Amino acid sequence: MAKNLTTRSEDYSKWYNELVIKADLAENSGVRGCMVIKPYGFGIWEKMQAELDRMFKETGHQNAYFPLFIPKSYFSKEASHVDGFAKECAVVTHYRLKNDEDGKGIVVDPEAKLEEELIVRPTSETIIWDTYRKWVQSYRDLPLLINQWANVVRWEMRTRLFLRTAEFLWQEGHTAHATEKEAIAEAEQMMNVYADFVENYMAVPVVKGLKSKSERFAGALETYCIEALMQDGKALQAGTSHFLGQNFAKAFDVKFATKEGKQEYVWATSWGVSTRLMGALIMTHSDDNGLVLPPKLAPDQVVIVPIYRNDEQFNAVGEVAKDMQAKLRAAGIRVKFDNRDTHKPGWKFNEYELKGVPVRIAIGPKDVEKGTVELARRDTLTKEFVNQNEVVEKVTGLMTEIQENLYKKAVDYRTEHTTEVDSYEEFKKVLENKGGFISAHWDGTVETEEQVKNETKATIRCIPIAGEKEAGNCMVTGKPSSQRVLFAKAY
Amino acid sequence: MAKNLTTRSEDYSKWYNELVIKADLAENSGVRGCMVIKPYGFGIWEKMQAELDRMFKETGHQNAYFPLFIPKSYFSKEASHVDGFAKECAVVTHYRLKNDEDGKGIVVDPEAKLEEELIVRPTSETIIWDTYRKWVQSYRDLPLLINQWANVVRWEMRTRLFLRTAEFLWQEGHTAHATEKEAIAEAEQMMNVYADFVENYMAVPVVKGLKSKSERFAGALETYCIEALMQDGKALQAGTSHFLGQNFAKAFDVKFATKEGKQEYVWATSWGVSTRLMGALIMTHSDDNGLVLPPKLAPDQVVIVPIYRNDEQFNAVGEVAKDMQAKLRAAGIRVKFDNRDTHKPGWKFNEYELKGVPVRIAIGPKDVEKGTVELARRDTLTKEFVNQNEVVEKVTGLMTEIQENLYKKAVDYRTEHTTEVDSYEEFKKVLENKGGFISAHWDGTVETEEQVKNETKATIRCIPIAGEKEAGNCMVTGKPSSQRVLFAKAY
Repeated sequence: MAKNLTTRSEDYSKWYNELVIKADLAENSGVRGCMVIKPYGFGIWEKMQAELDRMFKETGHQNAYFPLFIPKSYFSKEASHVDGFAKECAVVTHYRLKNDEDGKGIVVDPEAKLEEELIVRPTSETIIWDTYRKWVQSYRDLPLLINQWANVVRWEMRTRLFLRTAEFLWQEGHTAHATEKEAIAEAEQMMNVYADFVENYMAVPVVKGLKSKSERFAGALETYCIEALMQDGKALQAGTSHFLGQNFAKAFDVKFATKEGKQEYVWATSWGVSTRLMGALIMTHSDDNGLVLPPKLAPDQVVIVPIYRNDEQFNAVGEVAKDMQAKLRAAGIRVKFDNRDTHKPGWKFNEYELKGVPVRIAIGPKDVEKGTVELARRDTLTKEFVNQNEVVEKVTGLMTEIQENLYKKAVDYRTEHTTEVDSYEEFKKVLENKGGFISAHWDGTVETEEQVKNETKATIRCIPIAGEKEAGNCMVTGKPSSQRVLFAKAY
Repeated sequence: MAKNLTTRSEDYSKWYNELVIKADLAENSGVRGCMVIKPYGFGIWEKMQAELDRMFKETGHQNAYFPLFIPKSYFSKEASHVDGFAKECAVVTHYRLKNDEDGKGIVVDPEAKLEEELIVRPTSETIIWDTYRKWVQSYRDLPLLINQWANVVRWEMRTRLFLRTAEFLWQEGHTAHATEKEAIAEAEQMMNVYADFVENYMAVPVVKGLKSKSERFAGALETYCIEALMQDGKALQAGTSHFLGQNFAKAFDVKFATKEGKQEYVWATSWGVSTRLMGALIMTHSDDNGLVLPPKLAPDQVVIVPIYRNDEQFNAVGEVAKDMQAKLRAAGIRVKFDNRDTHKPGWKFNEYELKGVPVRIAIGPKDVEKGTVELARRDTLTKEFVNQNEVVEKVTGLMTEIQENLYKKAVDYRTEHTTEVDSYEEFKKVLENKGGFISAHWDGTVETEEQVKNETKATIRCIPIAGEKEAGNCMVTGKPSSQRVLFAKAY
């Protein structure tokens, strides 16, 4: 099928950019770095949101909404936080436009200058902790377990659809706890919730780990993360959960009275995933024919395409198709019956392959006669004829089978592309020839991490939590190390 | 019960402001005019969103997401649109902060000035129609039925929680059609969807109508609206749906090839409801004891409060309560069992009355003995004892009964506060003494409308669609009129 899609082996990056646009997921807008998420892409994001939201609620969190704007002064209150975000933020300075004197257009009204500039939130710790000061007085008010679905803005210079955009959509959880232990448990819990979602819904395997100091969130004492591996051997950070200690509580003076009546600072976490997950989903499963979607997140799990030459055939085929659609729907499957007469079956086959619909059912006049349908799997690109009365059972089984197959393929890829190395030479060779995760010993210093990054562009993706202690020597400096860490080039 | 809540008769406006805060719905933030929507308030908004989203999808719409920022030049392309929004918009002029030279704080980096200022969207017609130009080529691409859930910013000088805030949450539908007739049908359909939602879920009766020319949306040829009446006799515009003609298609050059191969401009609609609906919900039903929520939108429809003096009693009561919670949940009711030992029953009664939970069930040791519970209705403030094995049936029935009762009360109030007048004298007297909707003849001119507004603060809320033709004379000028219109003071 000619889809005019660059292949992955030709140019992975170009393949990705083209696929996002051709599969109708998103496109660039007239505003530098800001994307438009198209209905089909947004439909997938909505499915992600719904599952994550359910998981957050099941773990006791509630949603709320905080202002888009953050006064500049709030930003300065937590030192490392402002360093992390000040260099790339959108600043509101005025609140009115007016007609210019020549009457030729509109200009910013210089008289409508704000006393204090407002920053469009790049993340909401500061505005939220300014609010929590009012909400937390006593141990009875804790824990405070809140999540927000919102848009945020980070003025990135180089942007790519879903992966890095000036504005993106995300959720940010912000919790307050009475003890350090509880806050750490929360941060770990949310990393596990993310891993559960990404593995079981997106079918993307992840490594859970801790970030090295220099990769931590601005203001965090510890950043937990989940790291996934894309088909081009580059890693993608799929979610982070931060233990913030008492940094924000101190910056915003949030104290509580303990049961014993003492005043103590509150302990905090924050955690987030974003529309970046769309990038991870696309790059993990898709192929040279287009998008491949796991059934749990596919807006349409099955598409039925009728094949006919005349009205009589259309009526006969349509009857079978509608009946099948109803039966599949009753079994809880999301089915689209594409009976448009403006497009030919071949065009439709192509379209749904490009859009990653997990199962395609084609019904023609011969199928009506024989009581069969042609069923095609998107993940394996295989086809078979199935008796009409077995379709529901078959498709129901395929939903699980395809979901598992995608996950397994991704795990296999990752296994093949995770290499243990013991020397810096070997490290560079593997990175150059094969990519993927490289497991190596590191001396734990920022200097060595920086050196590796400057010389190879690889960074420490995480210190795996499941990693066993193993005495060794740093591949660069030879200094002692007690555990291997994962390096990779990353998105 | 002392709730320290100002009563409605003392000061309606103060009552509203206090109630929003005390019922944990929302509060003001440190950012001028921007509110924080608290978890309880957001829980209600989420229920509204879910129903509306379902209704939009059932009428064929899909969600998408467009940029937060709008280049200033886009704004100028539709003349009346820019006039309507330029005077109250947040303008982004820079994209970076830096440490100031004294090292004392952070300042806007003058070198990071944007070439073109960006407006934080007050509404998205311009950015969306700039995008539609790329999406619409042929009649096959139409209709385009898209909705967006988003935050918008209008730099209002006088703000009030939910009713008028600088930032608010809303949905905005933007559709494109091949013909004028289809676009008008869409605008009317969405007015009807809004009316259905507001009446059947919020239990708030509305009048469907058309806006007079001067009250129309900036850029619309016709604005359909739904108008509700609050308990203080003031009207509240609960939703609007605009027929935009070809104004935006012309401004952004969006043409399509007809079946016959001609190039024509596309016809447009846009429609929206916002967190303002929260204000309408609160002001329609609530009383001097606090919030009153219709069951369909209440985050908790039932709360169970245990009454006990010792552990033994708590165990016995708790067992009945948990069993009842499980049975009510199985019947699809949202039930909270408040077994906190940090608060007394009296405090809890007060709290849930303030928060408008439709039904409260209290269970004490005597109830355990007798097999009863005490059941209290929030809407009527009545109590009764009910046999435990009849609770599910009773509560299920009450969900419908309370929903209907709230709607009926609101309809009755509106009927009592809708007055027909035939002279301007009478108009002023009714407005002064009674308020409410005033139905009167108007000569159809902007001048008369303006005069009434300046002299009485009342505006034309709408020209009712269900209104019958009736020959008469304008109450102000005596000129002929063919239909009565509805006047009121409005939020």
